[in-house]
Amino acid sequence: MSDALVLHEYAASGNCYKVRLTAALAGKRLEPREYDIFKGETRTPEFLQKINANGRIPVLQVGNRFIPESDAASYYVAEGSDLIPSDPFDRADMLHWLFWEQYNHEPNIATLRSWMTVIGVDKLSEPQRLQMPIKREQGDAALKLMDEHLGGREWFVGGAMSLADICLFAYTHVAGEADFDLSRYPNVQVWIERVKQVPGFVPLDA
Amino acid sequence: MSDALVLHEYAASGNCYKVRLTAALAGKRLEPREYDIFKGETRTPEFLQKINANGRIPVLQVGNRFIPESDAASYYVAEGSDLIPSDPFDRADMLHWLFWEQYNHEPNIATLRSWMTVIGVDKLSEPQRLQMPIKREQGDAALKLMDEHLGGREWFVGGAMSLADICLFAYTHVAGEADFDLSRYPNVQVWIERVKQVPGFVPLDA
Repeated sequence: MSDALVLHEYAASGNCYKVRLTAALAGKRLEPREYDIFKGETRTPEFLQKINANGRIPVLQVGNRFIPESDAASYYVAEGSDLIPSDPFDRADMLHWLFWEQYNHEPNIATLRSWMTVIGVDKLSEPQRLQMPIKREQGDAALKLMDEHLGGREWFVGGAMSLADICLFAYTHVAGEADFDLSRYPNVQVWIERVKQVPGFVPLDA
Repeated sequence: MSDALVLHEYAASGNCYKVRLTAALAGKRLEPREYDIFKGETRTPEFLQKINANGRIPVLQVGNRFIPESDAASYYVAEGSDLIPSDPFDRADMLHWLFWEQYNHEPNIATLRSWMTVIGVDKLSEPQRLQMPIKREQGDAALKLMDEHLGGREWFVGGAMSLADICLFAYTHVAGEADFDLSRYPNVQVWIERVKQVPGFVPLDA
């Protein structure tokens, strides 16, 4: 079994894009394995048994072992690169942004994007429909917090791009697809353009 | 400014307990600063400006710098101890459990516990009330996944206790307070007792 990195993914997912963008910027090669999540291909007994008991992608395969969760997979791919700060405080601060994204940003902005552009608002359940204004408010709060943090800074942690920028970029730069108005967050807009100019950058739909 | 570790916390919070338990097991000392979250003490202009723009605890203070997010703060406290695996795969696998807990476990089990024991079911909003059965189902799915993973294993990652066990323990061992029936998850029950026997262990209500 080789130690080639295999990415089990659904390419349109922003969470999968985090791992691909990390690999591109860290100079690592990924072999993609594509699944159609809308056909239940990540909920088959074989997938649940072998690849991820949680039935989700992305999952990074290292030899015959597996790492689920986009941020953990990205962390593994980034190991040894400048995307993980060497200073312990900066490293923990970077992790703080990754956890913050998963709790405060992704469940609002990515979920609204999925509900609006993939499922369709008219097909939402009643609990989902009632959550829309809450997710709208919390998504805007997340973008506002990012915008204020970026005032006078180029990157989220320390003085250089890190995994924090990659993992925050994935769903932020497509927040407009969920009707978030990014023109209200000028520092975020400038930072989005800064990320896109980094050598080696690959877009979501590459 | 000294480099003493200060924990800005609300002691009854399981998220704050993660950092305290990590410190106890890693042999680090924390100076607690207690806030009453129900009196809005983490939403004052000073708190938002200086300690955490996200208005939440725990926040770890290192000198005059701050690390929000329970898992990131725990990671910083655990640096240099055996709680963070030295093997890169195991380290990423440990992070996977931390991210999984924040996305799949805490928003279901910890949130239901808060709704049922702190806010009170009769005071919930309509969107919250409609989410209760969803959070119940997803919380049980999280406990089932943990139970299956622990079949034939003593700890979540590799062959030793790690930060993954600490961060999963915090809200799992009190899941009964949200009416989750832990007797359905015997491997989880044995693991809970195993964690409690680790030298240096401190309970939530210490």
